[in-house]
Amino acid sequence: MTHTVAVSGASGYAGGEALRLLAGHPSVTVGAITAHSNAGERLGALQPHLHALADRVLAETTADVLAGHDVVILALPHGASGALAAEIAERSPDTLVIDAGADHRLESAADWEAFYGTAHAGTWPYGLPELPGQRERLAGTRRIAVPGCYPTTSILALAPGFAAGLLEPQDVVIVAASGTSGAGKALKPHLLGAEVMGGMRPYGVGGGHRHTPEIEQGLAQAAGEPVRVSFTPTLAPMSRGILATATARLRPGVAAADVRAAWAAAYGGERFVHLLPEGQWPTTKAVLGSNHVQLQLAVDERAGRVIVCAALDNLTKGTAGGAVQSMNIALGLPEQAGLEQQGVAP
Amino acid sequence: MTHTVAVSGASGYAGGEALRLLAGHPSVTVGAITAHSNAGERLGALQPHLHALADRVLAETTADVLAGHDVVILALPHGASGALAAEIAERSPDTLVIDAGADHRLESAADWEAFYGTAHAGTWPYGLPELPGQRERLAGTRRIAVPGCYPTTSILALAPGFAAGLLEPQDVVIVAASGTSGAGKALKPHLLGAEVMGGMRPYGVGGGHRHTPEIEQGLAQAAGEPVRVSFTPTLAPMSRGILATATARLRPGVAAADVRAAWAAAYGGERFVHLLPEGQWPTTKAVLGSNHVQLQLAVDERAGRVIVCAALDNLTKGTAGGAVQSMNIALGLPEQAGLEQQGVAP
Amino acid sequence: MTHTVAVSGASGYAGGEALRLLAGHPSVTVGAITAHSNAGERLGALQPHLHALADRVLAETTADVLAGHDVVILALPHGASGALAAEIAERSPDTLVIDAGADHRLESAADWEAFYGTAHAGTWPYGLPELPGQRERLAGTRRIAVPGCYPTTSILALAPGFAAGLLEPQDVVIVAASGTSGAGKALKPHLLGAEVMGGMRPYGVGGGHRHTPEIEQGLAQAAGEPVRVSFTPTLAPMSRGILATATARLRPGVAAADVRAAWAAAYGGERFVHLLPEGQWPTTKAVLGSNHVQLQLAVDERAGRVIVCAALDNLTKGTAGGAVQSMNIALGLPEQAGLEQQGVAP
Amino acid sequence: MTHTVAVSGASGYAGGEALRLLAGHPSVTVGAITAHSNAGERLGALQPHLHALADRVLAETTADVLAGHDVVILALPHGASGALAAEIAERSPDTLVIDAGADHRLESAADWEAFYGTAHAGTWPYGLPELPGQRERLAGTRRIAVPGCYPTTSILALAPGFAAGLLEPQDVVIVAASGTSGAGKALKPHLLGAEVMGGMRPYGVGGGHRHTPEIEQGLAQAAGEPVRVSFTPTLAPMSRGILATATARLRPGVAAADVRAAWAAAYGGERFVHLLPEGQWPTTKAVLGSNHVQLQLAVDERAGRVIVCAALDNLTKGTAGGAVQSMNIALGLPEQAGLEQQGVAP
Repeated sequence: MTHTVAVSGASGYAGGEALRLLAGHPSVTVGAITAHSNAGERLGALQPHLHALADRVLAETTADVLAGHDVVILALPHGASGALAAEIAERSPDTLVIDAGADHRLESAADWEAFYGTAHAGTWPYGLPELPGQRERLAGTRRIAVPGCYPTTSILALAPGFAAGLLEPQDVVIVAASGTSGAGKALKPHLLGAEVMGGMRPYGVGGGHRHTPEIEQGLAQAAGEPVRVSFTPTLAPMSRGILATATARLRPGVAAADVRAAWAAAYGGERFVHLLPEGQWPTTKAVLGSNHVQLQLAVDERAGRVIVCAALDNLTKGTAGGAVQSMNIALGLPEQAGLEQQGVAP
Repeated sequence: MTHTVAVSGASGYAGGEALRLLAGHPSVTVGAITAHSNAGERLGALQPHLHALADRVLAETTADVLAGHDVVILALPHGASGALAAEIAERSPDTLVIDAGADHRLESAADWEAFYGTAHAGTWPYGLPELPGQRERLAGTRRIAVPGCYPTTSILALAPGFAAGLLEPQDVVIVAASGTSGAGKALKPHLLGAEVMGGMRPYGVGGGHRHTPEIEQGLAQAAGEPVRVSFTPTLAPMSRGILATATARLRPGVAAADVRAAWAAAYGGERFVHLLPEGQWPTTKAVLGSNHVQLQLAVDERAGRVIVCAALDNLTKGTAGGAVQSMNIALGLPEQAGLEQQGVAP
Repeated sequence: MTHTVAVSGASGYAGGEALRLLAGHPSVTVGAITAHSNAGERLGALQPHLHALADRVLAETTADVLAGHDVVILALPHGASGALAAEIAERSPDTLVIDAGADHRLESAADWEAFYGTAHAGTWPYGLPELPGQRERLAGTRRIAVPGCYPTTSILALAPGFAAGLLEPQDVVIVAASGTSGAGKALKPHLLGAEVMGGMRPYGVGGGHRHTPEIEQGLAQAAGEPVRVSFTPTLAPMSRGILATATARLRPGVAAADVRAAWAAAYGGERFVHLLPEGQWPTTKAVLGSNHVQLQLAVDERAGRVIVCAALDNLTKGTAGGAVQSMNIALGLPEQAGLEQQGVAP
Repeated sequence: MTHTVAVSGASGYAGGEALRLLAGHPSVTVGAITAHSNAGERLGALQPHLHALADRVLAETTADVLAGHDVVILALPHGASGALAAEIAERSPDTLVIDAGADHRLESAADWEAFYGTAHAGTWPYGLPELPGQRERLAGTRRIAVPGCYPTTSILALAPGFAAGLLEPQDVVIVAASGTSGAGKALKPHLLGAEVMGGMRPYGVGGGHRHTPEIEQGLAQAAGEPVRVSFTPTLAPMSRGILATATARLRPGVAAADVRAAWAAAYGGERFVHLLPEGQWPTTKAVLGSNHVQLQLAVDERAGRVIVCAALDNLTKGTAGGAVQSMNIALGLPEQAGLEQQGVAP
């Protein structure tokens, strides 16, 4: 049996990645492909890597076009998905709507308003299956909020330590480097190739990045108490990939062996999240184009901290792969369906 | 039914790419994985992107280890595959041996000796199925010579024009840019990242590159007469991909429409080779990690030449993907089995 | 004694590079710095690498602002410099006006109109001092047309062979790879970092690139007869640099030693153009940020062609460095003043 | 008057950068250029960007060759400079010896032995002139220990806050990204271009990097008490540049305005270290090839921390530029002599 999936925002990076994965998904038929200003164009002209769908023409992003599919993936600018999802629900209540944007991630309306400046659209089940209890929440759901790429990386990096009570909640520092596809296809001077290649730059420093409250929310759920995070993102000269260096102070008396054991236990049964063998460190190259996450950690006895490095592909596990993984759970498909690619390296 | 496939040279780039593709092949079981100096190590330590095979341990590259598989892929240094293939044949005559190295590509022993400096090991069926009549030669074969990455790109770029009698055979110029994985994992100073990033450099200029006679061989077969090629390879600051700019003088009286028609006819039925819609030009980004080839051409009326640009991934269609495609034909499997990935972009 | 130099188009790449070089020029004072949409901003916000001039504020690009300087460098979009130069001349006839744009490069009005589609603004002395007789034409001039970056590379690559009568004029093929700064700061999707990194793509194929008639003009002057060029530019994943692979058929009977001797003679006395020792090939890394050009050549006896590879920095020798070099000659300064930087490598 | 300067280790990246800067230094003559395994070769074959010195031949690295120069710059592997410096001193006691390696940086012999595993060679004046009182220590000295590239970045980032008593000394986290030239020309697989491009990877995590005690030493001097640092370096896909994100907890009651004022006061008079205007963040592109350092900071009120981002060129201000700057002070030359280049961007 096959499920029909529509993708809106198909001319962007998240939409393109969703289509790349869906084109190889064994239980899915790609339905409507929609866009805003690019409606009417051949997909092959906009996403020339999607040979399987090159001759498909982009439709307008409307509820009429999207309703009637088994699944709709929304890869839209922030603020655009709430109203559209409501319209789709009216026409076809059984459609699974997956929001790859930020609108439905945060539980705190106050945080939403402080960081995004608009009214809160509500909270949907959070599409990070590796969190404790999350698969149950996703099974059979008709609404999924896909986590942000930095939160996926950061929460996976530190959640096991908070869940096991090993980490101080007020002294977390995360510095992450992202490929520039994370900024989308926006035509901004600092995203031009000539500016990007050969250089590293920070942005959103000082707590201002919109992913900060989402990271704190995820870690707080693991910790069972509020967690305060200093998060600094940087732009790296690469197309894809996030490497997060996440560090937290160990609670007094925590032994290094306990630390490793906590992460090993949390991810030992996971298919996509890998605590690497000791001595081997993650690299974003190794997960490019795949849904895998690589982790490694070290305890710095001098500084009394654990340092966890996590690498994933911001467009795959960080966005569209995470969306497909959660979709599979919601639909009762094998979790890895359509996600069995290895990383493309070197 | 599944076929067992062994891969030798598994710690290198070609071997790693073969394993990446085989891990997702629906009719294949990965058998022995072998290496030379890295025998005894975990594959995950050497090819950290191959999560599905991370815990496999590399065996020694010997005929004993390799014999008994349905297929053996040899990704070895030049000169190493002839003797090993003979030993394998003695033990298991029905094994399909696929040589990803150069040893069995050239028909002219004189060319082999002039460019490689050793005795010629013989000629095997050439694994470029898109050439006229080639699928018939590959069906059921027990020996396949995988084409070089530059020859695959160059021959696919110009063969339709020669086959249709549109091009002068003595005035062909090809300039190609390759990602540095094409040079393998050799530890040479000019291949260090700090040297490679931000720069372009030529090498093997003046007819000295070993792929020159192979390109001439392929084009001559299409033309039915000798073809002389000026071929210049360059190293580009990227990991993967080849962009070839191939140009030949048109025979007198050839019209631009005839030119386009020849290429359209040659590749209209091909699954992996795409003459793009007019106005759209190839980019190596669009084929990264996939077995696809993008082509576009223009007739330069001022200069009386056709210019064909071709893009592929040197490790996929240029090496391991081409090997798997030919393997599929030899084994009677669907030609696209295990090769249905889209390009990974951006 | 110091010369005042104004730079218009200071927020772009060519203007920024001119300012970088002028800031270190021993006989120059940087005068007005002007822009169009960025007038009123701090230079440091737009060109953060120019620490010496960070607090300067950009003025409007008007003849009033620019007149009165000893030198005005125009780094403007095509078509904008003719009228402005006339206005400046009216106010200050002795000002040396240097056009870094294309408007005054071509001698053939027909070529100009065919390739640029507007009325021809006239022809100024061509700022490529290494061409025979060109220093005499530049000495004391009050008008300089700065060559295009591809023409500088291509003409320097092949002119010695044409001047020495060694090359057939109807069979020239040039394929060049450029860093993306060559496309300027234009906000186009294909110039985004995520699109550029990791890929090569051609553009302007088939004789359509505007630099083609300029290359033919320069080579024809060297040859003393018309020269026909097939020119294909490609975009490489790097910020700066051009590597041109230029090849031409040798006239019958020309010996390899004659070929090398011709280039050695042409550039033996040049400070910025280097025929490298045999066996060493150019790389764009070696000339980054410098006014140097590296050349090497090989005779391909099989194909009957000479292949010349040339590397330079498109913004330095290819634009602003070439402008400063010609300015020095026009003003009677040492030709290398302000241009003595080595390449920045690795 | 000119000073003769010899450079050993001239075939490596630090030695090459020293030569690049010295070639443009107005008060210096480049004397002996030495190497180990590359002795006897043309410099142009090894450092093709150094056109001014291309025909110089590398001598053996011996005290005989180096003695007699006014200055000797040692760019040697760790552990090699102590004995050689002693030999040079015996022959020419007035020679200024500048150690670009690590041997003479640390004051604590115990730290040296713990992190480097050999006997401590002693402590020389530390070549970071922007630290309080450091110019006085460098004036007239005959021994200079050039700081490591990460310590230069990290100490400059945080020293003003410690000197002003604003920061807690036990809660410092620094995550830095470096271009791969920082790892030198070592032929290691993970430094190959194909491995480096398109990926980020951490290394030396958990306090094990040798620069950690040097960073702690520098910050402790500013603070007047011990400082404990969690330092994680990462390799970024670029040739040059370091971006450090350095964060420390603010002492209770410290106001954001005090923070900014402390950094502004510390660097207001500095020529090479720039606290950027508010809202503008550093990028390594802007300092490439220059001796400049860009800084910006933000106070994260939520997390109670200051985050300082600092960018420099690891080979220039991070190694050879810092060496020349300190040399100038020691010799009584203007501090900026030979260091007036702007960054090369884009």
